Amino acid sequence: MTTVRMAPETTLTPDSPGESAWSRRHLLDVDDLTADEVELLMTTADAMKEVLAREVPRVPALRGTTIITLFYENSTRTRSSFELAGKVLGADVINVAASGSSVTKGESLVDTVKTLQAVGADVIVMRHGRSGAPYLAARHAACSVVNAGDGMHAHPTQALLDLYTVRARLGDVRGRRVVIVGDVLHSRVARSNLWLLTSLGAEVTVCAPPTLVPRGLGDTHEGLLPPVRVESSLDRAVEGADVVMALRMQLERMHGGFVPGMREYARLYQVNAERLARANPGALVLHPGPMNEGVEISHEVAHGLQSQVEEQVANGVAVRMAVLWLVTRTRAKGVA
Amino acid sequence: MTTVRMAPETTLTPDSPGESAWSRRHLLDVDDLTADEVELLMTTADAMKEVLAREVPRVPALRGTTIITLFYENSTRTRSSFELAGKVLGADVINVAASGSSVTKGESLVDTVKTLQAVGADVIVMRHGRSGAPYLAARHAACSVVNAGDGMHAHPTQALLDLYTVRARLGDVRGRRVVIVGDVLHSRVARSNLWLLTSLGAEVTVCAPPTLVPRGLGDTHEGLLPPVRVESSLDRAVEGADVVMALRMQLERMHGGFVPGMREYARLYQVNAERLARANPGALVLHPGPMNEGVEISHEVAHGLQSQVEEQVANGVAVRMAVLWLVTRTRAKGVA
Amino acid sequence: MTTVRMAPETTLTPDSPGESAWSRRHLLDVDDLTADEVELLMTTADAMKEVLAREVPRVPALRGTTIITLFYENSTRTRSSFELAGKVLGADVINVAASGSSVTKGESLVDTVKTLQAVGADVIVMRHGRSGAPYLAARHAACSVVNAGDGMHAHPTQALLDLYTVRARLGDVRGRRVVIVGDVLHSRVARSNLWLLTSLGAEVTVCAPPTLVPRGLGDTHEGLLPPVRVESSLDRAVEGADVVMALRMQLERMHGGFVPGMREYARLYQVNAERLARANPGALVLHPGPMNEGVEISHEVAHGLQSQVEEQVANGVAVRMAVLWLVTRTRAKGVA
Repeated sequence: MTTVRMAPETTLTPDSPGESAWSRRHLLDVDDLTADEVELLMTTADAMKEVLAREVPRVPALRGTTIITLFYENSTRTRSSFELAGKVLGADVINVAASGSSVTKGESLVDTVKTLQAVGADVIVMRHGRSGAPYLAARHAACSVVNAGDGMHAHPTQALLDLYTVRARLGDVRGRRVVIVGDVLHSRVARSNLWLLTSLGAEVTVCAPPTLVPRGLGDTHEGLLPPVRVESSLDRAVEGADVVMALRMQLERMHGGFVPGMREYARLYQVNAERLARANPGALVLHPGPMNEGVEISHEVAHGLQSQVEEQVANGVAVRMAVLWLVTRTRAKGVA
Repeated sequence: MTTVRMAPETTLTPDSPGESAWSRRHLLDVDDLTADEVELLMTTADAMKEVLAREVPRVPALRGTTIITLFYENSTRTRSSFELAGKVLGADVINVAASGSSVTKGESLVDTVKTLQAVGADVIVMRHGRSGAPYLAARHAACSVVNAGDGMHAHPTQALLDLYTVRARLGDVRGRRVVIVGDVLHSRVARSNLWLLTSLGAEVTVCAPPTLVPRGLGDTHEGLLPPVRVESSLDRAVEGADVVMALRMQLERMHGGFVPGMREYARLYQVNAERLARANPGALVLHPGPMNEGVEISHEVAHGLQSQVEEQVANGVAVRMAVLWLVTRTRAKGVA
Repeated sequence: MTTVRMAPETTLTPDSPGESAWSRRHLLDVDDLTADEVELLMTTADAMKEVLAREVPRVPALRGTTIITLFYENSTRTRSSFELAGKVLGADVINVAASGSSVTKGESLVDTVKTLQAVGADVIVMRHGRSGAPYLAARHAACSVVNAGDGMHAHPTQALLDLYTVRARLGDVRGRRVVIVGDVLHSRVARSNLWLLTSLGAEVTVCAPPTLVPRGLGDTHEGLLPPVRVESSLDRAVEGADVVMALRMQLERMHGGFVPGMREYARLYQVNAERLARANPGALVLHPGPMNEGVEISHEVAHGLQSQVEEQVANGVAVRMAVLWLVTRTRAKGVA
């Protein structure tokens, strides 16, 4: 297991036993992580939480490391979270926004990545509007690539921080009933959560208007998507749930004809106090943020005792510290 | 008084006597600062000036502290000044610009602030176009909020750095005659300066076209605004002045019908050499920048011997270091 | 010569003999650098390469130094490269983008520079769309100004890193045959390279459509431009070349009537394998990036064994470290 010494200036132990379980240079999605790898991520995040709780919450574990955030889409929380995660570990963080980059000069993604790597990036944290973009980058990069969200495909650190948050409250997720409600079709958050939670043995129910359920989801013969239950009634879905995860309703979907209207959507799919009462006592409410209060979640529930929204954000820094630390270990050890 | 040891690597003394006078977690405006608090800010800024004059002008006083600048309006000098102030003290600074943030996704201000706090912000330095926005943020934040300018309401660090600059040249401002000339109606700089200067016993004269004087200003029966003299003739206003502070003329006011035209405005209200000659010998000229030379101030005066414009900017870093240091002290000591 | 001690935490030797050759506070172009100054830059960059190759590639050589990047034009590689160069040397780097600055409030360039200097900048790294802007800034600045590209005029650090890259492979450039192909007329990269290479005794050939050759270039009676050979056929130009430098074809030139079309341009002036075969065996291919593959350079050559594109980017960090270090030495020693 990863261990952390307590003196404020000491570093994380670099050669602890648990690391033998980690050999990935990139983190692109969660769908192929082994249970051991997930476990290592979680215990490493525990160690990082401890660092964050110190009086001077900084360690020089990644001193000399250069992290470049390359964001082709706007973001407050994800970019800030990665930036702080890097700085807490003593890395230097350089932010590159697509609008202020050579991207506008028509340079290809691969050339941009190779350039940033040549500049000196040890890790490129990438958000991109096109599904698969980080995979393309990783294929051509000698440095590490961490996916901070690609199109409608994956958002692995979000799924990991959601898992971390649930485990911190409920322990092991095996057999836990998790409801994911909202626009699953367009959600990279949902997709990564589906893979991660089902692989660990959680019983996942997806609840959404039929237009917002990915084709084939719930069809046990399919195999391309994880086995989950699909339920169109939120009242039925939350029955006996341990975790209710509301997804952000992109307001532009309203205009896309996927849902009849915001009010109608809220009436049928809003996570509110009345519905939450049908879940297990003390059931957790998660939301990846930013929330549309009054649409997919009521104000009362968003800020209620069962809401984990702020814990999710806080845990996000620890989980990203764990990710940055583990992927850079492979460089130090020459793992490809 | 705050003391600073001279060795380059030592920290500011964290428990010096003067700090007992400080118990504010936020700095939102100057209108309710006590004389003791202002004095403490000024002497702390003196200590910070000394740090800035060192061969290696850095101290680890705020090491482990995370400062997030959240700017909903563009700014060069204020944002850079806060960023450097934080870095000189060893803090990590993360910049969030509204255009690249979840703001554009419709997240409420309060949710954005709570998110940044959950990410790990110890201090949020906020500029916002709406008056009162930092107050709203502070009501919901466990971290410190520092107002870097809100709408037409307040710009406390600007008023404090102006005061610091005047004191450095003229000593105590009690009884000093200060003229503030220009668009007082729309100016957060003017508003904060009016409160601070009058509370310390300066004799303040406001000079502006009648359309640009806030209603009730100069009416001693009012009480909602500080007691100042209003004078429409700049020639008369500067008579015997010790300090002349010119405000930036927002060019869009010309189109708003507040003033007849730029040339006409300059003819009546420009601080130029001829008018400055009517002030006391050695009177100081201040401007919050950026200057419209040839409009509210002549090129000659802007760059003349009496101009304090560059001193203001330089002092701004020291004053902001003092603010950041004092507001974070309250966290360390558990003051709410 | 500049020496660097090997222990990870030691600093670069600040008073090594070679520095006596350096007395410039600014780096605005390469056209007036002496051979000794170029030599010092190259050997200092060697020392910096060594720092970058360390296990922890950081030195506190510029600790306490504030570098402000002031970019009026977008850039990924140049801005990131300077930012990392500063951070590797332990400086604090503050980024100011024109779009988020007082520039949009109509402040003059000189006032912006004076403000940033008053904030505390020791070095301003400036990119500006107008030729000569950094010269104007330097005339009014007490801090150092480094030109990161101005209009169609100069890009000195690009020329220096190109030289560094060539020297690393081929040694001294005296007598070497260098072909610069493409839009020389509008290229600040070409202009700085022409000065630097010819001053060091390289034999430079410029190859471009007649509409894209600066007037007077190649006219030995002129004297305002360095003496080079002009050749309109790329096949003839590359004959016997040691270095082929392709310039980025700004796609907007197509619409400006300078060239008949992209396909036509590529047919005549693309650096491809067939043409490269006419050069000397092992000839180097350089490109300042970002590349338009398939236009000025073929995909095959861009990523072939002779391509130095990634080396150029990597060397850029070392060369910029050298520049930042040398220009700040003059402050320490009081050189004006």
